[in-house]
Amino acid sequence: MNRDAPMLGVINAGSSSLKFAVYDEEALVLSGQVDGIGVHPGIRVAGARSEAIDAPDIGSPATPADVLPRLLPWLRERLGGRPLAALGHRVVHGGASHTGPARITPALLRELADLAPLAPLHMPHNLAPMRAVLEHAPGLPQVACFDTAFHRTVPEVAQAFAIPRDLAAKGVRRYGFHGLSYEYIASALPSAAPDIAQGRVVVAHLGNGASLCALQEGRSVATTMGFSALDGLPMGTRCGELDAGVVLYLLEREAMSTSEIEDLLYRRSGMLGLSGVSSDFRDLLASADPRARFALEVFVYRVARGVGSLAAALGGLDGMVFTAGIGEHAAPVRAAVCQACAWLGIELDPVANASHGPRISCPRARAAAYVIPTDENLTIARHTRALIAEGR
Amino acid sequence: MNRDAPMLGVINAGSSSLKFAVYDEEALVLSGQVDGIGVHPGIRVAGARSEAIDAPDIGSPATPADVLPRLLPWLRERLGGRPLAALGHRVVHGGASHTGPARITPALLRELADLAPLAPLHMPHNLAPMRAVLEHAPGLPQVACFDTAFHRTVPEVAQAFAIPRDLAAKGVRRYGFHGLSYEYIASALPSAAPDIAQGRVVVAHLGNGASLCALQEGRSVATTMGFSALDGLPMGTRCGELDAGVVLYLLEREAMSTSEIEDLLYRRSGMLGLSGVSSDFRDLLASADPRARFALEVFVYRVARGVGSLAAALGGLDGMVFTAGIGEHAAPVRAAVCQACAWLGIELDPVANASHGPRISCPRARAAAYVIPTDENLTIARHTRALIAEGR
Repeated sequence: MNRDAPMLGVINAGSSSLKFAVYDEEALVLSGQVDGIGVHPGIRVAGARSEAIDAPDIGSPATPADVLPRLLPWLRERLGGRPLAALGHRVVHGGASHTGPARITPALLRELADLAPLAPLHMPHNLAPMRAVLEHAPGLPQVACFDTAFHRTVPEVAQAFAIPRDLAAKGVRRYGFHGLSYEYIASALPSAAPDIAQGRVVVAHLGNGASLCALQEGRSVATTMGFSALDGLPMGTRCGELDAGVVLYLLEREAMSTSEIEDLLYRRSGMLGLSGVSSDFRDLLASADPRARFALEVFVYRVARGVGSLAAALGGLDGMVFTAGIGEHAAPVRAAVCQACAWLGIELDPVANASHGPRISCPRARAAAYVIPTDENLTIARHTRALIAEGR
Repeated sequence: MNRDAPMLGVINAGSSSLKFAVYDEEALVLSGQVDGIGVHPGIRVAGARSEAIDAPDIGSPATPADVLPRLLPWLRERLGGRPLAALGHRVVHGGASHTGPARITPALLRELADLAPLAPLHMPHNLAPMRAVLEHAPGLPQVACFDTAFHRTVPEVAQAFAIPRDLAAKGVRRYGFHGLSYEYIASALPSAAPDIAQGRVVVAHLGNGASLCALQEGRSVATTMGFSALDGLPMGTRCGELDAGVVLYLLEREAMSTSEIEDLLYRRSGMLGLSGVSSDFRDLLASADPRARFALEVFVYRVARGVGSLAAALGGLDGMVFTAGIGEHAAPVRAAVCQACAWLGIELDPVANASHGPRISCPRARAAAYVIPTDENLTIARHTRALIAEGR
């Protein structure tokens, strides 16, 4: 550890939550989370070994951005003489042009505000904390790290929807998300799974949000998420792939409003809608309810179909990686997915799978399977450090 | 030919067209088409060897159903002493319950009218001619043959969208279409492609409408079309797979109405939207415009991704079948799809492909590829004959 090197802060702001972390080079120093903002705010902070540490008094913030004027001075004090060199922000959408992280300036903020219609549920919450820091700590460099940027290597032919070109020109295309997670996995492959790192790999980011990404030599060539965070795999409460004709039916025949449909597809569908029981895989795996079992079967089926589709994008498969909450912890889900992917040469090692890997396939298998914990915050810290070091 | 056996009529009614055919056992006797109904109606009739034959005077029908009171007497005369035993109708939607053809009765018509919201652009046009015949020729038996019925063998897990169960109970599920075509191909496989007939086959019905179907031992286990005729592959003017978030974006940000979105996604998208040139593959293949080339690349890419996804549903692939207008006639499209599916073991025989098969893969290939012309009308005639013979 270089005790003179400045540290990096990471911010991930949602509608009523703000997550933060501090890194010293590659090492996590602390992380925390403020929830229930605007209602009953609560804060938790943990040290490098996940031990709880005393949290600051954050008052009664009305928005996640309101947390920062109290959080930043507390961090300064907590870190002693080591300054924060910069803040890196997770930003869900970087549009078609951002292929990597970008230094936050008033001009960038205006540009990103113009992208807000592409991700109306996320962008305003991502941007507000940047504005707050520009105002309260203008000397602190900030960097935006986009969840879409890693997928800008996807060929145009895969990004295009079959819609009129004027709509595509307005930005209606497949962007893909979870890019900071996939980028972390790609960076970890050479050491964690050297046998497949330069090959054709499908990464399954299975969390409350879920998607698949096809990596060819560590670069994204296809992903299941599209224009919004709705597409692709079924998720906790989001529908995943849905015939556009269903939305027309809901408008015409169920006379639902746009906001009712948005609520339905983002918050009442997915595993919650299918099961009628819960959006949480732990609940579903523990449930004896046949509807919970059916929801899990649909999920596994869709993951397997998606792996086949991405194997087509890759022209074959050398390996799979499971990551994020479900991917890292739900051994029965991994086992079912691997079984459904046996035709691609994946052979599960049940003992290795029960202990969560890292390698969960048999040594003789034609295609390997791994569990690799993701770390989006570390990706953000790395990008932020690199951009600041370049003086950009 | 049994000169005493009655013949079978087939009706396929659209919004402004009515196609008809007559079969003597398995042999086509004549076929015809009335177009431009309500505007400038024109009729063409051809004999068994596609030779033009004199067409009846159909007057000025306001709707496709209005053609029948003039067409049926002409057919009676034309066929001499051989009566029409029954009429079989193509019906786009049979809902979740119809797993095969059904005798048309007033009760069935009421039931099918209740399904109209599931296919509002097609069902009213499919049903009106049945009513007209019930009225004008009540003694003529009629049979409804559903484009969805063949897919009712698809497992529930594949039919479900990840949406709340009450919507699924209202009929929002993946039905799949082009079933009469897939059923014909399944019936033709044992003689046309005996090596794969009992195996895992993806059929590519590539016409102005396009979809893929996964056949396991001749039964449908998955298909790319879903709830409406919009989903799955890009088509002439239909979008295929589209993130539901795009529809929400069009509603919220482009302030489009439901009918404008319907027009966009059904009539201005697909190959026409992508290319800006044409919805017709012949035009696109002949065009030097890079946008036409891009549209074709997107189409081939999506077919290949779909084949991978369906191979996952089948647990591997023994062969592919190309059918319908593009599948039967566009050798360059087949070649590109086969090349993109090489990872699944398909190896194109370019000479056989140029002469449209029937077998277009090399003998040594791990997975075979065939061209088999489809015949939806014959499927309808067979069903109709069988149902009448059973006295149902």
